Amino acid sequence: MTRIVVDAMGSDNYPTPDVEGAVLAAREYGVEVILVGDAAKIQPILDSTGAADLPVGVVHAPEMLTMHDKGEELLMKARHKDAQNSMAVGLDLVKKGEADAFITMGNTGAIMATSLFRLGRIRGVDRPGLAGPFPTATGICTVLDIGVNPDCKPENLLQFGIMGSVYAAKVRGIQKPRIGLISNGEEAGKGSELVREAYPLLASAKLNFVGNVEGKEIFNGGVDVAVTDGFTGNVFLKSTEAVAKLLIEKIRAAIKGGGPLVLAGGMLIRPAMGKVRKLLDPAEEGAAPLLGVNGLVFIGHGRSDALAMKSAVRVAKEAVEANVLDAIKSAIEESLKK
Amino acid sequence: MTRIVVDAMGSDNYPTPDVEGAVLAAREYGVEVILVGDAAKIQPILDSTGAADLPVGVVHAPEMLTMHDKGEELLMKARHKDAQNSMAVGLDLVKKGEADAFITMGNTGAIMATSLFRLGRIRGVDRPGLAGPFPTATGICTVLDIGVNPDCKPENLLQFGIMGSVYAAKVRGIQKPRIGLISNGEEAGKGSELVREAYPLLASAKLNFVGNVEGKEIFNGGVDVAVTDGFTGNVFLKSTEAVAKLLIEKIRAAIKGGGPLVLAGGMLIRPAMGKVRKLLDPAEEGAAPLLGVNGLVFIGHGRSDALAMKSAVRVAKEAVEANVLDAIKSAIEESLKK
Repeated sequence: MTRIVVDAMGSDNYPTPDVEGAVLAAREYGVEVILVGDAAKIQPILDSTGAADLPVGVVHAPEMLTMHDKGEELLMKARHKDAQNSMAVGLDLVKKGEADAFITMGNTGAIMATSLFRLGRIRGVDRPGLAGPFPTATGICTVLDIGVNPDCKPENLLQFGIMGSVYAAKVRGIQKPRIGLISNGEEAGKGSELVREAYPLLASAKLNFVGNVEGKEIFNGGVDVAVTDGFTGNVFLKSTEAVAKLLIEKIRAAIKGGGPLVLAGGMLIRPAMGKVRKLLDPAEEGAAPLLGVNGLVFIGHGRSDALAMKSAVRVAKEAVEANVLDAIKSAIEESLKK
Repeated sequence: MTRIVVDAMGSDNYPTPDVEGAVLAAREYGVEVILVGDAAKIQPILDSTGAADLPVGVVHAPEMLTMHDKGEELLMKARHKDAQNSMAVGLDLVKKGEADAFITMGNTGAIMATSLFRLGRIRGVDRPGLAGPFPTATGICTVLDIGVNPDCKPENLLQFGIMGSVYAAKVRGIQKPRIGLISNGEEAGKGSELVREAYPLLASAKLNFVGNVEGKEIFNGGVDVAVTDGFTGNVFLKSTEAVAKLLIEKIRAAIKGGGPLVLAGGMLIRPAMGKVRKLLDPAEEGAAPLLGVNGLVFIGHGRSDALAMKSAVRVAKEAVEANVLDAIKSAIEESLKK
């Protein structure tokens, strides 16, 4: 049975959504869940979910990392041999082979640092990348890096391409995933210095590289993976989220202020709008994999609810069962041979 | 009377929308319009608009620059003393003081190069920036650069901040415009190397600098100007456009497939949806100013229609009447004094 460690102290409203989502997942997906965090806080919620018959365990971790952990102090907490925070304790379970994957809805910087110290990187990977799922007209595009490396080198983008390709193939079942490089124009030769240097590396790698892409190709479903540095990827993530939210709000306001007939129309289309919101909700995927660390680590939104956590467990289970970590290692090894 | 030069050969469907839009603007806004381009193509359209009583003139330019003009060859065409393309001829009118502003819906790279050679830069400005208007929850945010400088230095971002601030104050009438720096996180210290170096420059300038911003603050209306490099700005522009388009399409599809009641609701909300589309349509602003060249130059979408061109003329007229060029020169001079 696949064993997933869930950081019970990760989400903004921890530990309730984290624990409830984990229990939902254990019930629906047949996985073993190990909740890591303050046992005194976890247990009452666990008891209230009626999960006694499910393979849900608790491992006590008295401390936690928060949004306030950064800089030198974070590094100390991330690397300390006997660290007692939930991220460190949970990742150590993966490291020791007592679990197959780790999920948190907590501080991205903290989980990045803790993963690097406790799991290390895959040989040949210079920088891990966070691979965000974006809903498109036809499915999902995996964009990486969406925020852990604000400054990248061309080689980092190549590695993101290789890892993203393996992930899309193994976890999403896409044969020969189409890899695009995010740029300010589709033509080869367009782009920042970074993009212009990364282009030939991606083009000569064993990838189905389709060249430079813009937002249009990504949201049309023209590529399965879009590669970018963590600064641009994060701006891409935050700005598209924000504009979608604004659009929905403007529609709501226009319907509300549009007179009785429009208002009636608004009532009638509610099921359709709900469907669209669900389609475009990144929480449907639950969490994004941190590719390149030597273990399966998934990071979700701080504002995740129980359903987002449940989805995250499903995604992690799929990654474990597809053996994506070994496949990434092999692909990176292969790329080093040239 | 304000004199606006309109490139009749700029839009994808030139010269019809360009000419028709210019005539609409001359009629509505009381400006003089000078159409530059192939007179044999312009005149019949002009005749069909019944513009004989309006101050609309034609200056013949037998050649034109297209999307295919790039590299060395473009530079030759942009700089040639006797260049006969519509951009060069039109900009020379501005240069000679025979017109107050120039508008094109053509190739951004071509107008950038031609502007640099024919008008030059404002003293103290290293790189001009294209300042795109983005509709927000409360008004418009001016984002620059949205695409002419894929690689920037910190000083470029400072200059974008100064020019954007003046533009927002003079043209949009905003007192002490709030200036944000686009980053991957709101806290000071977040960002790429470029952003981290630009931050103190913006913070110590005579600007109402509010710090780092993400998509959320921009689309909430939290800032009046958002500063970024041309690569990130272009990704921001293209990805937010694409996601808004996808969302509208998904809503349309969900309504169409939602059964008769939902379909009826869809009919009823049509006026509201139209209003939202109009609100969020960048074409409502018509064109973006290229700030930092020594003259007023506006660039719009290739797919602009006559209404977009009409709006562009209005925006250019406002910029001329607000004397924004001199105000930018003074602000840049002021910033050099320190």
